[in-house]
Amino acid sequence: MHETIPHWLTKQADLAPDKTAIELDNGHCLTFRQLKDQSQSFAKKLAQAGITKGTHVGILAKNEIPMVAAVHALSYLGAVGVLLNIRLTDEEINYQLKDAEVSLVLTSDHLKEGTEYFQAETIQSFSEIAALEESEVSLCNELDLDDTFTIIYTSGTTGFPKGVIHTYGNHWWSAIGSALNLGIHENDKWLVPLPIFHVSGLSTMIKSLIYGMQIFLLEKFDESIVHQAILHKGVTIVSVVTVMVQRLINKLGDNHYPESLRCLLLGGGPAPRPLLEKGKARNIPVFQSYGMTETASQIVTLSPKDALEKIGSAGKPLFPAQLKIEQTSKDDLVGEIHVKGPMVTKGYFKNEAANNKALKTGWLATGDLGYLDDEGFLFVVERRNDLIISGGENIYPSEIESVISGMDQVREVGVVGKKHETWGQVPIAFIVVDSQSISPRDILVYAEKRLAKYKLPKEIYFIDQLPKNASNKLVRTMLLKSLE
Amino acid sequence: MHETIPHWLTKQADLAPDKTAIELDNGHCLTFRQLKDQSQSFAKKLAQAGITKGTHVGILAKNEIPMVAAVHALSYLGAVGVLLNIRLTDEEINYQLKDAEVSLVLTSDHLKEGTEYFQAETIQSFSEIAALEESEVSLCNELDLDDTFTIIYTSGTTGFPKGVIHTYGNHWWSAIGSALNLGIHENDKWLVPLPIFHVSGLSTMIKSLIYGMQIFLLEKFDESIVHQAILHKGVTIVSVVTVMVQRLINKLGDNHYPESLRCLLLGGGPAPRPLLEKGKARNIPVFQSYGMTETASQIVTLSPKDALEKIGSAGKPLFPAQLKIEQTSKDDLVGEIHVKGPMVTKGYFKNEAANNKALKTGWLATGDLGYLDDEGFLFVVERRNDLIISGGENIYPSEIESVISGMDQVREVGVVGKKHETWGQVPIAFIVVDSQSISPRDILVYAEKRLAKYKLPKEIYFIDQLPKNASNKLVRTMLLKSLE
Repeated sequence: MHETIPHWLTKQADLAPDKTAIELDNGHCLTFRQLKDQSQSFAKKLAQAGITKGTHVGILAKNEIPMVAAVHALSYLGAVGVLLNIRLTDEEINYQLKDAEVSLVLTSDHLKEGTEYFQAETIQSFSEIAALEESEVSLCNELDLDDTFTIIYTSGTTGFPKGVIHTYGNHWWSAIGSALNLGIHENDKWLVPLPIFHVSGLSTMIKSLIYGMQIFLLEKFDESIVHQAILHKGVTIVSVVTVMVQRLINKLGDNHYPESLRCLLLGGGPAPRPLLEKGKARNIPVFQSYGMTETASQIVTLSPKDALEKIGSAGKPLFPAQLKIEQTSKDDLVGEIHVKGPMVTKGYFKNEAANNKALKTGWLATGDLGYLDDEGFLFVVERRNDLIISGGENIYPSEIESVISGMDQVREVGVVGKKHETWGQVPIAFIVVDSQSISPRDILVYAEKRLAKYKLPKEIYFIDQLPKNASNKLVRTMLLKSLE
Repeated sequence: MHETIPHWLTKQADLAPDKTAIELDNGHCLTFRQLKDQSQSFAKKLAQAGITKGTHVGILAKNEIPMVAAVHALSYLGAVGVLLNIRLTDEEINYQLKDAEVSLVLTSDHLKEGTEYFQAETIQSFSEIAALEESEVSLCNELDLDDTFTIIYTSGTTGFPKGVIHTYGNHWWSAIGSALNLGIHENDKWLVPLPIFHVSGLSTMIKSLIYGMQIFLLEKFDESIVHQAILHKGVTIVSVVTVMVQRLINKLGDNHYPESLRCLLLGGGPAPRPLLEKGKARNIPVFQSYGMTETASQIVTLSPKDALEKIGSAGKPLFPAQLKIEQTSKDDLVGEIHVKGPMVTKGYFKNEAANNKALKTGWLATGDLGYLDDEGFLFVVERRNDLIISGGENIYPSEIESVISGMDQVREVGVVGKKHETWGQVPIAFIVVDSQSISPRDILVYAEKRLAKYKLPKEIYFIDQLPKNASNKLVRTMLLKSLE
C-alpha cells in the first residue's frame, strides 16, 4: 500500500496552532501556525521561481528559520531538497550539485557571496526568493510516504560521495522509532545544536512536526548557551556528539543538571568509556546511539532504562528496526553490522553499483564492525574500517587521498585517523613523493582549495613507501603503528 | 512499499523482557518475555491442530491471558483471528462463522459448553489446545503491515453484520496515532475494562506491545476495582464508555483522583454534556473520542490541552488521519462524517457491495452526522441515523427488526433507541401485528433465541401502522415522538 498522511506541518498547525515550534537563542519564537504560513508563502514564491514537483533544489545554509521554512516549502511543492554541508569547498559542492541534478540552489543571505563558483543554473538567497510574488499554485496537503523528500551526501570507501535518498516514510519511521524509545512528553523541548544539513539536525526538525514538539535551534554548538538552556530554559533532550558532552561536563563541574533534562542523545561515533563514566557519575542521562545518513539518523539507541547499566553499548535496534551481525567466522563474535527497517534508505541517487553493494538483500550492509552481548545489546567496535569521525563529522580517508594524489609530484597517499583529545580523531597523511621539491605546506595549499577545512590533514609525513598487504592493498593500521 | 516490521511481541520481549506486560486484578502478572513464550508455545500447538498461514480462526472468550496469548499466537502463524462477541446468540455467531469462513473456533474453557450449536468444523478450548504437543513450525519473525490480522463484525443499516478487516498496519497506525495524541510515558499503565473482542480492547492490547506498556486487564468493568486501581495501582489511562464514567464519578463523590490518572479515554458514542461538566468539576481528565470498528478504534480524539476547553467535542483527527464533512447543502453546517487514514480498514470481508458504498473514494463514509466548529473541532451530532448505543455496545435497529419480522403474526416492526439513564440508550420496538393472539412476551421469547440480550427491546408497543415518508421509508424519529 502507498500510505499517505496529511501534510505534517499543515496537520500540526491544525492540531496545535499556537504552540511554539521553534525557539531561537535570541528569544525569537515561531508557532506551528506561523511556521506553516511562512513555509507555504515561501513555497508559492518558489513556484514563481520555477520550482515544481520533482525539482531538485540545493539548500546551503546554517541553522536558521528561513532554512527550516525553505525545507518545508519544498515539501509543499513535492520538490526534493539536496542539503549541502556549508563547510565543503566549491569543488566538493559542485560534485554534489552535478551528481544530484540540482537546478536551483537556495542559500542564506550571508552565504550568497561565497557561491560564485557554484555550477548551478540559478543561485538565490532566501531574501531574493522572499521578495518574489506568490504564485497561484496548489500546495500538497498530503504526503505519500514513498515519495522522495531529501538527498544528503555521504562519502564512502570509494572516494566518491553518494546521495542518500530519504523518502517521507524514512523520516516518518525514524521519528516514530525514536518516539517509541524515548517516549513523548508534552513538555519536551529538544535542543538542536547540530546542523540541519546533516541528518541528525534534519531528523529533529521533522520530529518537531510529528510530535508537536518545540525545538530550541542553535546556529551552532556553544557550550555556554547549551548549558544555560538546560539549566534555565526547560530543555529536556539535546542531540550531541562526543566533543559536546566533554565540554558540557567540563562546564558543569561538580554541579548537576535538573531532572527536566531527560536525554543527551549521543550520535556520531562511539564515545570513550571514561567520558560515559564521568557522565554517569554526574547523573547525566547520556544515551549512546548508532546510526548514519542511510538510516535517517539513529537506528540503534540505548533506552532510558538501560542507559546507566549498559555503558559503552549503543543499545538495541529501535522498535521498527532489525539488526544482525554477519560474522566472518563462527569463532569471531565481531562481524559487519547489517540493519533493516522502514527508516533505511531505499537507495543512493542514480548509483546502481552502490545500491547493489549495500542494499541488494533488503538489509543495509553498513561496513561497520560490532558485536552483540548475550542480552542483545550492540557494541560498535569500529566504524567502517577507515572512517574518521572528527567532532561529529565523517571523514573518508579515500576522499583526502584522492585529492592529494592529484598533485603531480605525489606518487601515493595514505590517510588515517589519529586520536585527538578534543575532536575524537583528526586525519593525518602519509605521502610518497616523486620529487623532493614539494613541502607539506604546498600540499596543504593545494588541498585546502579542494577539501573542507575539517578534512585537511593535521599532520603530514613523507615516507618511502606505503605498507601494503598481499593483495597490494593499503594497510592503514600499519601507518598508525609507524608513529608509535 | 510493503513495509515490514519485526514481530511486535518478539521485539518488545527483546527490548524489555522483564517489564510487566499484563497485570490482572488478582495480582497475577506476566512479563513481555513470558507473554511471548506463552504465545509462541500456543502457536506451535495451534500448528499441531492444523492452523496455518491464512486460516480463519474464531475466538470466543472473555478478557483473560489465554485469550491474549491465542490472538498473538495467530500472528506468529500468519493466521487471521475472527473475534466473536460472547453476548451473541448461536444464530448470530453462526452467521459470522459462516460469513468469515472460520474453520476452527477457540474458546475459554468455561465457555466451551455453550458452543454445542456452533456450526464450525472444530471447536477447541484453550486448555485442549494447551494439552497438544508443540509442532516444529517456523514462526513469523516479521509482520507485513499489509497482511490481515483480525476480522471483527459490525452491523449496519442493511441488517447483515459485516466483517471489518484489520491489517497489521491498521492496528499499527492506530496505536501510533493515539501515541502522538496522548504521548508515551514510561510509567504508563492502561486499564482495559472493555472486551478484547471489541476493537477498543483489542487495540489497547496491541498498543501494549508497541509502546512496551503495561496493561491492567479486567474480565469486565467493575467500578470498585477500577476505582481502587486508579487510587492505588498507578493506573494512568482508562478506556471507558459513558456509563462507566458515570459510575466512577458516583463512586468518587467529592474526592479527587491522583494526578497519575492522566486520561479517561471515552469512546462508544457522544457523552451527555452534564456528565462531562461533572467530570471537569472534579478535574477528571475525560477525553472524548470518536471512532468505530472500521477505524481500528479512535480516529478523532480530544487532546490533553483541549480536553477541558472543548467540552462536548470529540476533538480533531489523529495525526495520520483526515476528516471532512460532506454537507448536503451549503447552508447546513451538519453533514456526513468522512474519514481517511492508514488506520482505516481496507474493506469488509468478501462484501463488494458494502465496500463500494462506504470506501470507494478512498474515504470512509461513516454514515454519522457531525459538524466542525470554527477551530476545526468535531462535534458528533448523531451516530448513523438509526444506531443505538447501549452501554458501549452498538445495536442496529434493522437487525432487531429483521428478527422480529420473522414471526408469522408480525407484519412490520420499527425499532428505535430510547434514552436511558444508565445505559445511554436502550432499544424499544413498535410492532404492527396481523393477529391479536400474540403478546409482547411471545415476541421476547422468540427474539431471545436469536438476539443477544442487550439487543432485546426493553419496551414493546403494538401500533396500527408505522410512520413512513413519501418514499415509503420508516421515519424513526416519529416513533419516538409518539411516546411524548
